[in-house]
Amino acid sequence: MLKEVLLGLLAGAGVFTVGILLGHFAIDKGSSLPEWARDASRDVDESIIEKFLAELDTSEIKENLRELTKVPHMATTPGDEATVDFMLKRWQDPKTGLDSAWREDYKVYLSFPNKTNPNKVSVVDPENRVLFTAREKEKAYKPEQEDPEVVQPYAAYSPAGNVKGKLVYANQGKMSDYELLNQTLDLTGCIAITRYGGEGRSKKAINAAKFGIVGVLVYTEPYDINDGLVSESETYPHSWYLPPSGVERGSYNIDFGDLLTPYLAAKDDTYRRPKEEITGIPPIPAQPIGFEDAERLICELDGDNVPDGWQGSLNCTYKLGGPGFKPTSPLNNSNVHLDIYNTERLENSANVMGVIRGSVEPDRYVIYGNHRDSWVHGAIDPSSGTAVMLEITRVLGKMVKEGKWRPRRSIIFGSWGAEEFGLIGSAEYTEEYFSKLSERTVAYINVDISVFANATLRASASPAAQSVLFTASKQVNAPGTTKSVYDNWIQYFNRTSPNYGIIPNVGFLTGAGSDYAAFMHYLGVTSMDISYYYDRSKTRARIYPAYHTAYDTFDYASTHIDPGFTSHQAVARTAGNVLVRLADSLLLPFNCSDYAESLEQYLSQAVTAFEGKLAANGVSMESLKKAVQLFRETATKLDRLIRDSDLAKETPLKARRINDQLMLLDRAFLDPLAFPEKYAFRHVIWASRSSSVPTFPGLADAVEQAERTGLKEDWDQAHKHLSIVTQAIAGAAHTLDDVI
Amino acid sequence: MLKEVLLGLLAGAGVFTVGILLGHFAIDKGSSLPEWARDASRDVDESIIEKFLAELDTSEIKENLRELTKVPHMATTPGDEATVDFMLKRWQDPKTGLDSAWREDYKVYLSFPNKTNPNKVSVVDPENRVLFTAREKEKAYKPEQEDPEVVQPYAAYSPAGNVKGKLVYANQGKMSDYELLNQTLDLTGCIAITRYGGEGRSKKAINAAKFGIVGVLVYTEPYDINDGLVSESETYPHSWYLPPSGVERGSYNIDFGDLLTPYLAAKDDTYRRPKEEITGIPPIPAQPIGFEDAERLICELDGDNVPDGWQGSLNCTYKLGGPGFKPTSPLNNSNVHLDIYNTERLENSANVMGVIRGSVEPDRYVIYGNHRDSWVHGAIDPSSGTAVMLEITRVLGKMVKEGKWRPRRSIIFGSWGAEEFGLIGSAEYTEEYFSKLSERTVAYINVDISVFANATLRASASPAAQSVLFTASKQVNAPGTTKSVYDNWIQYFNRTSPNYGIIPNVGFLTGAGSDYAAFMHYLGVTSMDISYYYDRSKTRARIYPAYHTAYDTFDYASTHIDPGFTSHQAVARTAGNVLVRLADSLLLPFNCSDYAESLEQYLSQAVTAFEGKLAANGVSMESLKKAVQLFRETATKLDRLIRDSDLAKETPLKARRINDQLMLLDRAFLDPLAFPEKYAFRHVIWASRSSSVPTFPGLADAVEQAERTGLKEDWDQAHKHLSIVTQAIAGAAHTLDDVI
Repeated sequence: MLKEVLLGLLAGAGVFTVGILLGHFAIDKGSSLPEWARDASRDVDESIIEKFLAELDTSEIKENLRELTKVPHMATTPGDEATVDFMLKRWQDPKTGLDSAWREDYKVYLSFPNKTNPNKVSVVDPENRVLFTAREKEKAYKPEQEDPEVVQPYAAYSPAGNVKGKLVYANQGKMSDYELLNQTLDLTGCIAITRYGGEGRSKKAINAAKFGIVGVLVYTEPYDINDGLVSESETYPHSWYLPPSGVERGSYNIDFGDLLTPYLAAKDDTYRRPKEEITGIPPIPAQPIGFEDAERLICELDGDNVPDGWQGSLNCTYKLGGPGFKPTSPLNNSNVHLDIYNTERLENSANVMGVIRGSVEPDRYVIYGNHRDSWVHGAIDPSSGTAVMLEITRVLGKMVKEGKWRPRRSIIFGSWGAEEFGLIGSAEYTEEYFSKLSERTVAYINVDISVFANATLRASASPAAQSVLFTASKQVNAPGTTKSVYDNWIQYFNRTSPNYGIIPNVGFLTGAGSDYAAFMHYLGVTSMDISYYYDRSKTRARIYPAYHTAYDTFDYASTHIDPGFTSHQAVARTAGNVLVRLADSLLLPFNCSDYAESLEQYLSQAVTAFEGKLAANGVSMESLKKAVQLFRETATKLDRLIRDSDLAKETPLKARRINDQLMLLDRAFLDPLAFPEKYAFRHVIWASRSSSVPTFPGLADAVEQAERTGLKEDWDQAHKHLSIVTQAIAGAAHTLDDVI
Repeated sequence: MLKEVLLGLLAGAGVFTVGILLGHFAIDKGSSLPEWARDASRDVDESIIEKFLAELDTSEIKENLRELTKVPHMATTPGDEATVDFMLKRWQDPKTGLDSAWREDYKVYLSFPNKTNPNKVSVVDPENRVLFTAREKEKAYKPEQEDPEVVQPYAAYSPAGNVKGKLVYANQGKMSDYELLNQTLDLTGCIAITRYGGEGRSKKAINAAKFGIVGVLVYTEPYDINDGLVSESETYPHSWYLPPSGVERGSYNIDFGDLLTPYLAAKDDTYRRPKEEITGIPPIPAQPIGFEDAERLICELDGDNVPDGWQGSLNCTYKLGGPGFKPTSPLNNSNVHLDIYNTERLENSANVMGVIRGSVEPDRYVIYGNHRDSWVHGAIDPSSGTAVMLEITRVLGKMVKEGKWRPRRSIIFGSWGAEEFGLIGSAEYTEEYFSKLSERTVAYINVDISVFANATLRASASPAAQSVLFTASKQVNAPGTTKSVYDNWIQYFNRTSPNYGIIPNVGFLTGAGSDYAAFMHYLGVTSMDISYYYDRSKTRARIYPAYHTAYDTFDYASTHIDPGFTSHQAVARTAGNVLVRLADSLLLPFNCSDYAESLEQYLSQAVTAFEGKLAANGVSMESLKKAVQLFRETATKLDRLIRDSDLAKETPLKARRINDQLMLLDRAFLDPLAFPEKYAFRHVIWASRSSSVPTFPGLADAVEQAERTGLKEDWDQAHKHLSIVTQAIAGAAHTLDDVI
């Protein structure tokens, strides 16, 4: 038996060896890797995304909106404080909240009308008898408009002042508008009435002052906002259109951020410059009025008929003004009188911040934000966005609290304060945490007004983010259709890409229209701004008609903008999908070749518009062409490296390295000295631009300035801007090249 | 038998299972980790460092120096081109070279004397008869001084010009010096003779021009350079002291980098500003002379005796000047005449770059550099440093080529061009690759003049680097002693640290004395500058006496400075050790608590000097105190995290995360708008400073300016600088805090 047992044992020894070998080699090595190695190589989980998208609920969004819009919540008012508490309660909820949430306060410089001494617009005859007085508040159609907290319509940062003068109609208040008037009229001492649009609010007054004009009225032209409709029976509450007494409030400033503390966070004892040093605000009193009042003034004007394009939908032929009113008018010989009592105050404004800590790369931030403050109830602006953000945080927070999910990277949510006064909360945040945010922020997603209308997605973004917007929008159904948001979008906004053919057109983030500005322009963070938007073939509305008025209420939003809240949901799903992809993807879903395409597009525009003019002044564009070409080559190289890598099987440091290249791409275009006169505009490609040529802003503006003056020093500046943008693009290309 | 076999098989099945289990669990999991995991967790290998230090050879350094100093190699001359070729040959050597090496060219704005029409300094009587002419070249004691490529002594960037005037002696050419003269003399139309030291070269002329002075001579005072010795028998070649005819050349400018292209790399078609826009260069002709000639002028002066501290070692009692010479002098009634023919030219200057690619984190750079250009043969300045760099690259290159070693991080070596004209090569490099270098550079090590003398190590650095300097210097023997470099160092330079007690004093990098400037101040890269230095108790020499003269030759260096080349070797070993530690350590050897200590030291100085004055003007320093305290707290927290981590066993992403915090710490102090008038000084803590109070430069200079003028707007500026530095320190503290 010994022999047989030995035989058995021998066989056993063999299987023992086989066992060892099996144990060592055959059992999936993955399972023998330490847990961190598996975590580090994990990619986005599509089933989590599906689950997340499915949970985003229209009725939750609707209830968020109802809660957020109960009372007016202009920045730093008690209503604003109530929304701070509400956000904190939600983000600190033990079942659906975030890992942590807190408030951060800044003491910021705001401008308000005087509650007990409201601004007055009137017409007075030579004996100072008042012949006409404009409304001090909008007409109430619902109880919301009766709320005593509804702020009187005003032009924030307009100086207080008491001015009188003959009226002229100055169209949009552009320099060219005043120049035209100035050809036939002496504008000195006049009051101008201008319509919103075509020029920045504050510029209407700044331009006017250059011609000796002493005060500016700004009204909402029904041609621009109401598709021409003017009667009460056709406007809210009967439709989404603006009632005759509706007035667009707004901040009349050019620069964003707290105006007394540029580049410094506005803390209690931060240095504040003298208010005399503030630039970009009206030098003369300004006041907005409704078109009902505007009609009373414009239709009485004397003078020549207005040129093409100046005529609006009010019930008369528009005249330029005599200056002043026509002889047959009861207002003949009278002056328009602006009595403005705005005061500036330092007030405490809060950002509410919330965080979900990343599991693998907690030191990488995806930031999602929107402002919280409104002018009045702000149902659409900004609460439609906040309602969406709260629904996203509810679903993500719940998954985190239930232990079902935790993002690879950290997610930071920001509910910014005092945006309406000039993007102040977000700007102060980026100033205070500049270094930390510069080092670690992967992307910023802004959803302010989430739904303007129900037709289509609209997005503006750094070109690096185009691809993730496409991926996300293909996975969401467009409300009211059987198509994806992407397939719907491409019908409304599209362009022909040299690389992809026809694709949805993602706009460029060249302005400072919402809180993305500090992220895109100051920090150089790849940013995007997402909303649902109009069918432009069905309306010319400059913006949704109740914008910045007392009619932007829950009733307005839920009756006229998005009754089923399905567009809100589509935005939540699209933006939320982008957010989770940015937070969870092993490799950041940014595409540097798409960036190259945009640079090539800009280059081509610049060559067409400026190459001849520059050459005539001895300046060659060859280096710029080479820089763009180098960018294309290095982008292609990085794309190839990504394609040829199996990152899940390689060191996590490789994915991190490539991700750093992608994360920092927009940062590479920053030049803090390129635009010394423009606060916080440091991104050489996307900075604001005066020129109408859609190309590199510094170059375009400098060439056009040089053309205007013909001065050698201005052509020098054009050359300098050419060198700045060339170096920025080449410098960015170097960051995409082999890392050593 | 079936039963027995079954029994055996059963037993076999048991061992099979045991085998599987053994295979799966018992065999060292380490060996089952993928290779990348082991690489990622590998720390610095002390045996490699030992081997590396042992191989650094004095005779190799000596031969490098001999080769580098064969001919004069002023920037952009044929001699400079020869050193370019030599560096490339060495770094491209198949056995001891680097992974790759190349040259990078810039077209830079340089200033040269006219070879065929040399600058002239003379004394002319009223009939324009020449009574005295200063030397045009230094006296030859060795063949090197006869080399036709020895450039005439001159003041680079001094304008050409032909000026005459009565002579005054203006000490060091400080504002206070001219103010004193101006109390009793009319300086208009005078020529000033000043001594080197106490004030920047160019400032001596800039200050002078404010008083109507039309030309400036600058000489090397033997009291300052030769410990008072003046006779040929006591100076080189008999000692290290400067011969009577020796003249210090130098660049007369305040700003560094190419003067026509600030912030832009000087490529062929880069925008160049008009030369009229250059600031910081002499507005009046300037020329340096030797003390032999200076004596002929100073000792003939009329006027009052000079005040204390102005007297030097020339053989007479120094007078202020009548202005002009004394009646008893043969030069009576005569003028000093400066005839300067300097011209500015755009010339091609090369950096030579070499790289060793990192194995684990190739996208992290440790940069080691020195300039290559000299004024004449430049044996000490800069070739002593280049000889050391070449020996370091030889030993490291060999280890790489033999497959024995490859650093964790990439190492970049830079042999900079045109440093003598204003750190131009390194500045252009940081401008061209700003984004890439900002993102990835761990540290910059500068070894320019490696050996001033043989007494002790001297180092200046960002406080973050103090600890690695200490670690490295403890492992190297000090030449001529039985002690470590560290133990020797502490005897010469020391301070009492609140945390460590008595330690070697590492200086702060507040100036722009060598190529670290662009890295420390513009990029915010943790930088250090390392050399061997004097025993200050044995000499007052302002700098080694042959500095910037035709006597700075291989003979001088090998006879009088470091005959055995052991100090060169000690620097090679210390700097090389630092380099390998920075490149190989799993965790960067930077210490943020040491940074906190420096900030506390600066704070304490600021409070002592300025708190009362600021309070009297309504400005509180409390926020600054809180910011420094926050920095201390977050530094302690990060230190604790590091101490409590076993990084070799954790995800490599954790070490990378902490390393990013450490790498980017100096970056967090950058503010590109803090010092608009100072090119490239962006580091709010270490920027240059006019105030003598060793503290935050913006604050100190602004408070002192406000004290001088008493103007409200200047106190506002002091408040602003307080806010700037407070925000920078708090912002840096946030980067050290928990990453989310």
